[in-house]
Amino acid sequence: MMQLALEAARHALRLSPPNPAVGCVLVAPDGSVIGVGHTQRAGGPHAEIMALRDAQAHGRSVEGATAYVTLEPCAHHGRTGPCCDALAQARIAKVVASLTDPNPLVAGQGFARLRAAGVDVEVGPGADEARELNIGFLSRMVRGLPWVRMKAAATLDGRTALDNGASQWITGAAARADGHAWRARAGAILTGVGTVMEDDPRLDVREVETTRQPPLVLVDSRLQTPPDARLFDVPGREVWIYAAQEDAGRAGPLEDRGAQVKVLPNADGKVDLAELMRDLARREVNELHVEAGQKLNGSLLREGQVDELLLYVAPTLFGEGMGIASGIHGRGPMQSPSDALALQFRSVDPIGHDLRILARLPGRDGF
Amino acid sequence: MMQLALEAARHALRLSPPNPAVGCVLVAPDGSVIGVGHTQRAGGPHAEIMALRDAQAHGRSVEGATAYVTLEPCAHHGRTGPCCDALAQARIAKVVASLTDPNPLVAGQGFARLRAAGVDVEVGPGADEARELNIGFLSRMVRGLPWVRMKAAATLDGRTALDNGASQWITGAAARADGHAWRARAGAILTGVGTVMEDDPRLDVREVETTRQPPLVLVDSRLQTPPDARLFDVPGREVWIYAAQEDAGRAGPLEDRGAQVKVLPNADGKVDLAELMRDLARREVNELHVEAGQKLNGSLLREGQVDELLLYVAPTLFGEGMGIASGIHGRGPMQSPSDALALQFRSVDPIGHDLRILARLPGRDGF
Repeated sequence: MMQLALEAARHALRLSPPNPAVGCVLVAPDGSVIGVGHTQRAGGPHAEIMALRDAQAHGRSVEGATAYVTLEPCAHHGRTGPCCDALAQARIAKVVASLTDPNPLVAGQGFARLRAAGVDVEVGPGADEARELNIGFLSRMVRGLPWVRMKAAATLDGRTALDNGASQWITGAAARADGHAWRARAGAILTGVGTVMEDDPRLDVREVETTRQPPLVLVDSRLQTPPDARLFDVPGREVWIYAAQEDAGRAGPLEDRGAQVKVLPNADGKVDLAELMRDLARREVNELHVEAGQKLNGSLLREGQVDELLLYVAPTLFGEGMGIASGIHGRGPMQSPSDALALQFRSVDPIGHDLRILARLPGRDGF
Repeated sequence: MMQLALEAARHALRLSPPNPAVGCVLVAPDGSVIGVGHTQRAGGPHAEIMALRDAQAHGRSVEGATAYVTLEPCAHHGRTGPCCDALAQARIAKVVASLTDPNPLVAGQGFARLRAAGVDVEVGPGADEARELNIGFLSRMVRGLPWVRMKAAATLDGRTALDNGASQWITGAAARADGHAWRARAGAILTGVGTVMEDDPRLDVREVETTRQPPLVLVDSRLQTPPDARLFDVPGREVWIYAAQEDAGRAGPLEDRGAQVKVLPNADGKVDLAELMRDLARREVNELHVEAGQKLNGSLLREGQVDELLLYVAPTLFGEGMGIASGIHGRGPMQSPSDALALQFRSVDPIGHDLRILARLPGRDGF
């Protein structure tokens, strides 16, 4: 049954940010499924309420039922009241939850209130998968940082563009659509001014259905973004520009295009990437989807700001061209292969004619 | 039963070159397996003879049995006489073979003589797998060329060495041992003088068991190989050096180390790679295993001399360094991603912490 709840949670991935994507399945004492629900848009009902409403809409009694839910029911007042109370009032007999909610407003209080109300509680089933679905939410709650996923599309020889900058297209339509699905679940999409100057991308979610466009985060130390860049052409999508110096003359025209400009310099006169991440967490970004050039990618990796790599690999060779990330070694050129930046493969899947490789920096998910 | 014969054939892979790796299983009319065999070293008995001997050694009658064999039984006189005659004389009732042998000395005559002797013949089961096991033998027989497999070990960002040349080790022990298993089945191993100067490798088969060391083919246009290179330290292993110009002064010391030097220039004063491949086929090389640097790899790809890529990918990033192949585009720098050299993924497998990717150039196996 938890698999069904996880499946429901998956339907909330593009919808729920900054709330976690949660699924809930209600099972009658005779074992039949009587209600299914998942988190709605932020401000809307949570998964448990949706499942209770689903049962009610079908005229099914939930008394004595077991609720399978992929995250601890909330214990705080939102638009719909605490879910733990709603479950207890509905005379649910037992709650099976995958994870404790690390949100300090919940953090075990949901379970405690359920138990106090006489509801059985079991925690753990489906925990690994539930964690992965909400790794960004958990990261933000526990680390105060988004989960940073760096996306790249490369040839089999690791080239992300030709020397002349051309990169459209390296991978096939299926891989590109899959990339849009990952954008769609992100709390924000990050790129650098270099990519804006080079490719003038929109960096919005297309090719897959979505009800929200994640804000675009632009690292632009000297505010060189042209006010007529195509990234401003996405209606209703927020653009957050991070600069390293105040420059009202340059900021003005960008703000006129709707951008919010923030100055976060480090000692080298560049954008302070560590502080940027903390700021994005404050802005409730759970998963940060990075699509940048080799230079910004290299800076993010060098400064330890990346959690995993989402790499699409085409079955092609360029021979020469741009790489995935440059300058990842902080202390001059690497001298030994043992200095390489180490990752761990998590999954490799064919997507159309291409491969999708997920690789994680070791220990980054140990929160 | 053909799966059992294919499994037997696999045991011949490191043993049989330049003969094909063939497996044979004899099955009694009651369905029991009464004999199994595979090709021995060149000059030794073929799979059918080994299977007949196996049955005899166990005192089992083969009269009326069915022989499953992964390649057409030979029709020419070798040390043991034609296998088709041996099977007929042993009163085998039926032969099921995966493939017709394209060797002009056989080429259907084996089947014809079996049928003439009253033996039933069926051709086809296991053909795909049997083809892959002997793709080099088939290539040499049909195309007059070896099957050229280019092996490389790279980081996830496509780097095969650091800028300072260091490359030991990019992949883990399991991937390196797997690479030696591929070397062991090759008819010859090819490298360039650049790799010899840079790494001074032995390029022999270690880390896996083998009874033969494939000859080493060295592309060395100007005969710059140092006579004290470690590649000469492999006892009994032949070294074939291909140069682009006569130079007795340089060739002499290399020949003193046991090398055979051949001059095959092209119009540009380099080694004629197309002619080299034809020459290797004449020397009975079925599979050519290439382990070279980015320059020679690039030349081989540019000149259309590569059939597939065997790539080990480590879960690491270098940021900078050497690539897999440079200069693969014949007409100056590539201008568009659509000019990329196209391959097709055949398999992706985890080997230890690394990935092994087999990718084939489209249409190369259409012989």
